[in-house]
Amino acid sequence: MILGIDHVGLAVSDVEAASVTFSRLLGQEAAAVDQFGAQGVRLCFIPTMAPNLELLEPLAPESAAGRFLARRGEGMHHVCFAVDDLEGELARLRDAGIALIDCVPRRGHGGLVAFIHPRAAHGVLVELLQRDS
Amino acid sequence: MILGIDHVGLAVSDVEAASVTFSRLLGQEAAAVDQFGAQGVRLCFIPTMAPNLELLEPLAPESAAGRFLARRGEGMHHVCFAVDDLEGELARLRDAGIALIDCVPRRGHGGLVAFIHPRAAHGVLVELLQRDS
Repeated sequence: MILGIDHVGLAVSDVEAASVTFSRLLGQEAAAVDQFGAQGVRLCFIPTMAPNLELLEPLAPESAAGRFLARRGEGMHHVCFAVDDLEGELARLRDAGIALIDCVPRRGHGGLVAFIHPRAAHGVLVELLQRDS
Repeated sequence: MILGIDHVGLAVSDVEAASVTFSRLLGQEAAAVDQFGAQGVRLCFIPTMAPNLELLEPLAPESAAGRFLARRGEGMHHVCFAVDDLEGELARLRDAGIALIDCVPRRGHGGLVAFIHPRAAHGVLVELLQRDS
């Protein structure tokens, strides 16, 4: 079952600069910058929002986030929905014929994740996240 | 004070088709499509999420949403933060030197709104919304 939006991800070229910008803009502190090599990004959450805002800086130009930045520039990158049962959701989506990037859950930042293909969601990259409990 | 994310807006070329897609994807019903001429869009909320997902279809190619679609195609369009005092937030942002599209609140869908310029927010169009109580 999909519980709600967990976070909105923004692709940025300099995560420290962006965390300063958004801290000023929102009037609240960003969390520490974290490096998440498995997805090739450095990231930062602004955690007191509900949901979170996530800033993503590519570690390398050939990462998925790096290719996005090169093609589209900084801006909105993905929306992430919190789920309680990622395997079950993926089965439901497969049965509904929705194109998935990840057919099985994989280890993400904060839990198990899977991505839905933008062509199945009107150009939007959709992440599903089952947070570690 | 910024309270949290109110909704995430997606630009789409056909709001009915997109509401079917996202209803299937999320496993929940979309609200009825609404026309909001002041911003030149037809829109639809998927309201049981927290926060909402908003689907926006331009009424005309020369509207702001229409120009966005022509330039970037369907996809993520803006993030909206709920505020309790829009005038106060705009004064705080002006004092912080943040570039605003709207220096004074204007009537939006569901309340008073103002937009922050994407150049002040790493390419992200940011909406502030003070909902009608």
